[in-house]
Order: sequence, then structure tokens, then C-alpha cells
Amino acid sequence: MVKIISTNYISNHQYFTARKDKYQTPSGKIVEEYFVVELPESACVVALTADNKILMVSQYRHPIGQMSLELPGGFIEKDEPKEKAISRELLEETGYSFTEITYLGKTHANPGVLNNATHLFLAKNGIKTSTQQLDENEEIEIVLKTIEEVKAMIANNEIIQSMHELCLVKAMEKLKVVEG
Amino acid sequence: MVKIISTNYISNHQYFTARKDKYQTPSGKIVEEYFVVELPESACVVALTADNKILMVSQYRHPIGQMSLELPGGFIEKDEPKEKAISRELLEETGYSFTEITYLGKTHANPGVLNNATHLFLAKNGIKTSTQQLDENEEIEIVLKTIEEVKAMIANNEIIQSMHELCLVKAMEKLKVVEG
Repeated sequence: MVKIISTNYISNHQYFTARKDKYQTPSGKIVEEYFVVELPESACVVALTADNKILMVSQYRHPIGQMSLELPGGFIEKDEPKEKAISRELLEETGYSFTEITYLGKTHANPGVLNNATHLFLAKNGIKTSTQQLDENEEIEIVLKTIEEVKAMIANNEIIQSMHELCLVKAMEKLKVVEG
Repeated sequence: MVKIISTNYISNHQYFTARKDKYQTPSGKIVEEYFVVELPESACVVALTADNKILMVSQYRHPIGQMSLELPGGFIEKDEPKEKAISRELLEETGYSFTEITYLGKTHANPGVLNNATHLFLAKNGIKTSTQQLDENEEIEIVLKTIEEVKAMIANNEIIQSMHELCLVKAMEKLKVVEG
């Protein structure tokens, strides 16, 4: 068992929570300073429209200083079921509603630094039922891609977000199994 | 063009660098506070021994409070070529040397928070030439897995680190293409 000896928050800002722990490993070694960035659980989704296009979102990612073509998704709210969260995010970011949502599993972006998990989904039969309703700081462009286009992007390393590329790979595998 | 208006470092610790930026988006919107965690570039590798076992490393990941079965890898040192870094990390973490190392591309764990890229590699024909030489805080157990065992772990969502699972998927694809 790992034993936490002390915890000190170095940032408690609404957009950024980070702490420094001192802990003892099961073998008895003391780790004097380990930094953890705390994030809420999140979700992302390979969302297929009724005519089999994949809904993607293009946005500026400030930490890397470049645009990134990603999947719809976002943070799960406190006490919100993850299936409800992904439907809400899809509607807010894209204006589409989906009749079929399948869970593909969970992953962790970087469990050496970040404490959160990200849940991966596949949504099908999307119909535009609303308009985008973005948060104040979101500037997102919706991009529709065919499955073949996305496969080529994966092969060419053009999807630069690891969890989203993984979600695409898992969704393609699931679609192949289902549709032969 | 994005214009940085101000940058303030909130942590400059040797193990944790984080800053808060104020910037202007190309459309003219001001983002008052955006937090970025700065990490060095890193690398990970699907490393096959001469008898086709995959070298994996089991270690405790404090942010998520659990053990994680991952690939060998680590941070690239300043001015170190990435190919040299991955050979160095392999030797330090596993004691194996490799005759053939192939680049599989780069990814980003979470470009909404972390500024670094991670380079993905496939190494083949590994021979044990040395002993593990770990950093002070590393407690790593080497685990050898067959390719079939790793495929089953991917299918069962047992690889919990997104970049490492992605690297495994890309390596499997590469091995399939090469070996038919």
C-alpha cells in the first residue's frame, strides 16, 4: 500500500488545480515531492452522422500553439453519468443528437502527471437537431470527414491528440466487427 | 496569429513547470487565463526481443493511484536526438540493446493542458547486454509479453496509458504490413 505523508495544493484556481504529495511506496521508499495535476473525468466520441460522416472539431490548442483536428468531447460534470455527459457535449459542440451510443472503454492521457480518466465512445445515426452552444472560451469549427478520410489521417499521423486517435482506432475496429 | 499578452510562471520546480498565459486569438478574443504545464519531449517504444517478446514495464503511477503496465520510455534530454534517447532509455530501463529502431510518428497526450510531444518507436531484435540502471525514484518491474498476449490486453482495455496503447496499435499495424 502507498501511504500519503503530506499533500499541499500549489494551485486551486477554477481552471487549474495542482498539488504536491509526499508519499511512501509499498517497499518503504519515501518520494519527497510528486506533482499531480487534477482534472475532472472527461469523455470523447467518434460520432457518425446518419449518412456515415465522422463529426470532428477543429480548434486552437494553446499549450502546443497549433490547430488540432479532434473529436467532440469534454469534461464530465460532478455526479453526471458519462453517457449523459457525452450526449450533452455532442449537442452543445455540434448540434447533433444520436440514437445509439456505445462505450469503448477508458484511458488515461498521461497517468504520470494527470489524475483523470477519459471515457471513449462511438455514437451512430446522428441528426442535426439544434445549433452549436459553445462555452465562452470555445472557438470550434465542425468538420465532417468520411471514414476513409479519417483512416488516411490516422495512417499519416495527422490526428495529433493521443486519446482521440485511440478512440478512432477502437471505433474503426468496432465498426469492422459489427459490419464485417 | 495568436498573440501572447502576458506569461506568468506559477511553478518553476525542477519536477514541475506550469505557467498562466493571457493571449489574443486570431479572431481578436482575449483569453484572460490559460494554464499550461510544460514538459520535455518524451519517447516510448514497442521493444521486441530477439525471440519476439514485447518488453513492458510495470510501475506505480501516483496521480491515478494504481499500477500501470506500460512501454519503456522517458523524457528526451536537451539537444539529444530522439533516436538516441530511446536507445538510452531502453538500455537504462531494461538492459536490452536493439539493432533496428523504426520511427512510428509523434503524438500529444493532452494538448489542452500539456505542451509536449511524445515520439513513438518500434525496436526489434533486442538482446540483453546490461543490467537495469534506474533513476533514484524509479521502481520498475520488467514484464515480457507475447504479441498475442498484448493484442488481448488491448482488446480488453488493459493498457491504460493512451500514448502507449496507441504506440502498440501502430507497431502491430507496422509488423502486419512488414510480415504479411
